[in-house]
Amino acid sequence: MTISALQQARAQYQPKLPKSLKGAVKIVEGAATESVADQAEIKELFPNTYGMPLLTFEATDAATSVDPVNVGVILSGGQAPGGHNVISGIFDGIKKLNADSKLYGFLGGPGGLVDHKYMEITADYLEGYRNTGGFDIIGSGRTKLEEEAQFDKGLEILKALNIKALVIIGGDDSNTNACVLAEYYAAKNAGVQVVGCPKTIDGDLKNEMIETSFGFDTAVKVYSELIGNIQRDANSAKKYWHFIKLMGRSASHIGLEAGLQTQPNITLISEEVAEKKQTLGEIVDYMAGIIAKRAANGENFGVALIPEGLVEFVPEMKALIAELNDLLAEGSESEAKFKSYTDKAEGRAFVSSILSADSSKLYNSLPSLIADQLTLDRDPHGNVQVSLIETEKLLGEMVKTRLAELKAEGKYVGKFGTQFHFFGYEGRCAAPSNFDADYCYSLGYTASVLIGSGKTGYMSSVRNTTAPADEWIAGGVPVTMMMNMEKRHGHMKPVIQKALVELDGAPFKYLAANREKWAVETSYLYPGPIQYWGPSEVCDRTTVTLQLEQTK
Amino acid sequence: MTISALQQARAQYQPKLPKSLKGAVKIVEGAATESVADQAEIKELFPNTYGMPLLTFEATDAATSVDPVNVGVILSGGQAPGGHNVISGIFDGIKKLNADSKLYGFLGGPGGLVDHKYMEITADYLEGYRNTGGFDIIGSGRTKLEEEAQFDKGLEILKALNIKALVIIGGDDSNTNACVLAEYYAAKNAGVQVVGCPKTIDGDLKNEMIETSFGFDTAVKVYSELIGNIQRDANSAKKYWHFIKLMGRSASHIGLEAGLQTQPNITLISEEVAEKKQTLGEIVDYMAGIIAKRAANGENFGVALIPEGLVEFVPEMKALIAELNDLLAEGSESEAKFKSYTDKAEGRAFVSSILSADSSKLYNSLPSLIADQLTLDRDPHGNVQVSLIETEKLLGEMVKTRLAELKAEGKYVGKFGTQFHFFGYEGRCAAPSNFDADYCYSLGYTASVLIGSGKTGYMSSVRNTTAPADEWIAGGVPVTMMMNMEKRHGHMKPVIQKALVELDGAPFKYLAANREKWAVETSYLYPGPIQYWGPSEVCDRTTVTLQLEQTK
Repeated sequence: MTISALQQARAQYQPKLPKSLKGAVKIVEGAATESVADQAEIKELFPNTYGMPLLTFEATDAATSVDPVNVGVILSGGQAPGGHNVISGIFDGIKKLNADSKLYGFLGGPGGLVDHKYMEITADYLEGYRNTGGFDIIGSGRTKLEEEAQFDKGLEILKALNIKALVIIGGDDSNTNACVLAEYYAAKNAGVQVVGCPKTIDGDLKNEMIETSFGFDTAVKVYSELIGNIQRDANSAKKYWHFIKLMGRSASHIGLEAGLQTQPNITLISEEVAEKKQTLGEIVDYMAGIIAKRAANGENFGVALIPEGLVEFVPEMKALIAELNDLLAEGSESEAKFKSYTDKAEGRAFVSSILSADSSKLYNSLPSLIADQLTLDRDPHGNVQVSLIETEKLLGEMVKTRLAELKAEGKYVGKFGTQFHFFGYEGRCAAPSNFDADYCYSLGYTASVLIGSGKTGYMSSVRNTTAPADEWIAGGVPVTMMMNMEKRHGHMKPVIQKALVELDGAPFKYLAANREKWAVETSYLYPGPIQYWGPSEVCDRTTVTLQLEQTK
Repeated sequence: MTISALQQARAQYQPKLPKSLKGAVKIVEGAATESVADQAEIKELFPNTYGMPLLTFEATDAATSVDPVNVGVILSGGQAPGGHNVISGIFDGIKKLNADSKLYGFLGGPGGLVDHKYMEITADYLEGYRNTGGFDIIGSGRTKLEEEAQFDKGLEILKALNIKALVIIGGDDSNTNACVLAEYYAAKNAGVQVVGCPKTIDGDLKNEMIETSFGFDTAVKVYSELIGNIQRDANSAKKYWHFIKLMGRSASHIGLEAGLQTQPNITLISEEVAEKKQTLGEIVDYMAGIIAKRAANGENFGVALIPEGLVEFVPEMKALIAELNDLLAEGSESEAKFKSYTDKAEGRAFVSSILSADSSKLYNSLPSLIADQLTLDRDPHGNVQVSLIETEKLLGEMVKTRLAELKAEGKYVGKFGTQFHFFGYEGRCAAPSNFDADYCYSLGYTASVLIGSGKTGYMSSVRNTTAPADEWIAGGVPVTMMMNMEKRHGHMKPVIQKALVELDGAPFKYLAANREKWAVETSYLYPGPIQYWGPSEVCDRTTVTLQLEQTK
């Protein structure tokens, strides 16, 4: 296999570990824990894994001897930079426990466990994947481990391979399921531990014990590199507004961090839109207002960051989408009627006529391209495909219309040209930054210590991450501690609480305190590409979010 | 001004210079030159600047004393990484000639000269721009310097500021105009030298004396970083074909180099399409064939690179576009008729009915979205806006249709999901790679030597660029040497010959020799982000194009 010059050089990198993990490890048990909410229900659902203590690791001189342990690992869900280093950390950790330990990877995500598709991850095989991006080492998948039949099927292969512990690397849902599985195997006395590792590139698996999801650092740095380059272009050519949509359906952590790293003129945050119950019109007014102010200073250019999930956070859009799903449901009379129109404009007039007054008004205000996306591109269940809505173009069109009105009123003098961008796939599989390479390796290594000490239902936790890696605090956190009950598909379920952007948190407050200045002045920062070598303040800097959160 | 950690560290970088430029410089004159074609016409048009010798610089011990010289500089056209370093090189070079020399920047491109908008570039001001991307130091613009009235207006301010030499940093057209200006001032005995620096990010200002345009190295490395990340994602998720359109209207150098750096499954080259007179259908067949082959191996994913200018190189599309421009010309009867249709499908049927048989067939085969783009989005002159055609989506739609046919014939078993990307603005203003930082600084420094020795009508030339910078060969090349006569807007004009991708050149031949393997196997390379520090084989590597061209 030919590999790039960077890969060759980067393969030599030895990720940094916290001091506590470098030699023999002593496990310190903290107090018993409670779930963040709904304690009684969660306790009842997890009799074997509820209330366990927090664990912290400390260095010790006492050498321990451990039997070889076979471990299985699963990558679940969307890619995030550093997954290969989590696996490297597990591998090196269990080999240190005992050189005869083995690591098996289940292929193509959780489905690999159920379908008995696996491979042994050997030292040789692993060598080519250290410090690289992607999940291609064993592949990933989105099969959900939710049913007992799956758990039992999985147990067959775990038994056959003499696997004593399973590590599931995934997001909030995958870790919830990991805990359900831990509980199930514990209740059955199956002899298989289950340990989770926190991964979501969106950054929404985050709490007091999980300071950041792995891969977030790298992905946002890639997006910020590109945003910085585009800002420099905007500021050189001085003729375009760049509307940049960024990954992040359920939370705006990526958009917020990218905004802090690059200081663009506009950074929309979905959580703020929801909190303030903003209408699409209000968002458009806000954007048009800034564009007009800059135009008054002769600056007909700028950059706006738009979180991917924005429209779902706009209450009136949420209502419109719900109505459309209802009214144009598959097989309904109105759907048949709607489909009978060959002329799109007539189709839209019909849709408008059957919507509620509020929704109809909103629907009529949308650019026809977007109105058509709402009604024509439906998923197999007939639902509006929110992910296909081109939010950046929707806002571009509406802002243009608003600016034309302002111009007619004499409140805007300028030219408005737009360029649109959407960044997601560009960053999810980037080679991990030094931070993510170290953090992921430490998370994996931590999992091996949890395994070595017989723990189940825990998630790897590495904290104090703005300090040098040496001083990071490694340990385990019971997954049940992060849970509450939420309605999913009509049923109450125990799930890990999703972390949205907190409007009273330091990162958002920093944005809010500076954005008026950034809007009008051109205060762009150009972070440049991720650096693996060179000055530490460049190579090892953490996210601004972490810096602001940890310097209170 | 707050700047990023990378900018702070990078500001300290001292660009490398060829040995010959480090101390006092001796100028060695070569033989007299001839233009690449149309010698008689070019000679007649440039009596004062035709036939001048090639110049090569050598180090010397003889110290020279030179009077202070005031120099003006202009950035012309689209941004390319390293422009600020060209200016740094000129500044340091003329200061070394004499510490009392001054550098003036004309603002917002060539228009700044005509409109007398300028600033003095002082050492302090320049400090913040060394080794940064963008053209924001003095701005750029697309005004063409073509008319004598402009030249005379420019001369007024040059005289007022006592400017003895003007450096124009631009592409083939800008350097052509620089030479016309040099000739005009020479004929007038105006006492102003004009020197050019070769910049076009597309890479099409390239010949024996100009090995590469500045910024090309950096921009393609940014695109290749992103393509590599997307490839890793494709190879991890294994569910999408990513169609990636890349900058490059008039030549496919960027696509070719990016293909060589990343080894995707498909790399389309416009020049090959033109040479083989391929139809859109043949291109679609080629792509669908590869997709089907990979699907037969169970691999329903891949990456295809598509040059921005592709459709203009497809002979039948060129013919169709010309017919449409003609038939639907502004104010024509058929335009009025076409505009009278409110139903888009009826409008398309009408257009189809007035086209020639061949064009009509092609037009009918296009996805309606694209057919509409061809007829609805016209420029102010009523012409089809080729740059707005979403070539990646056009091919995506057509390939999908072709795959459905193959499936019906039992020749394709697989799923085809697509993601589309377009990279242009993401790379044009990136901070220059070490190569571009050094190369641009050397080009600027070379310009100062040409100025110091009284030359005009020359372009800075720095060659032997795959060797260490120390061994680079700096000198000057008469602009007229690169010229031929071409038809522009109905008139024959002297212009610098545009360099297209040569199908018998080493870079294309390397692609051609490997692409069948890359198509079916997954041979992706992941180049990663540009590195400014670290191992030299990572930080200082040149483009694959240059490596292949210079190791014959």
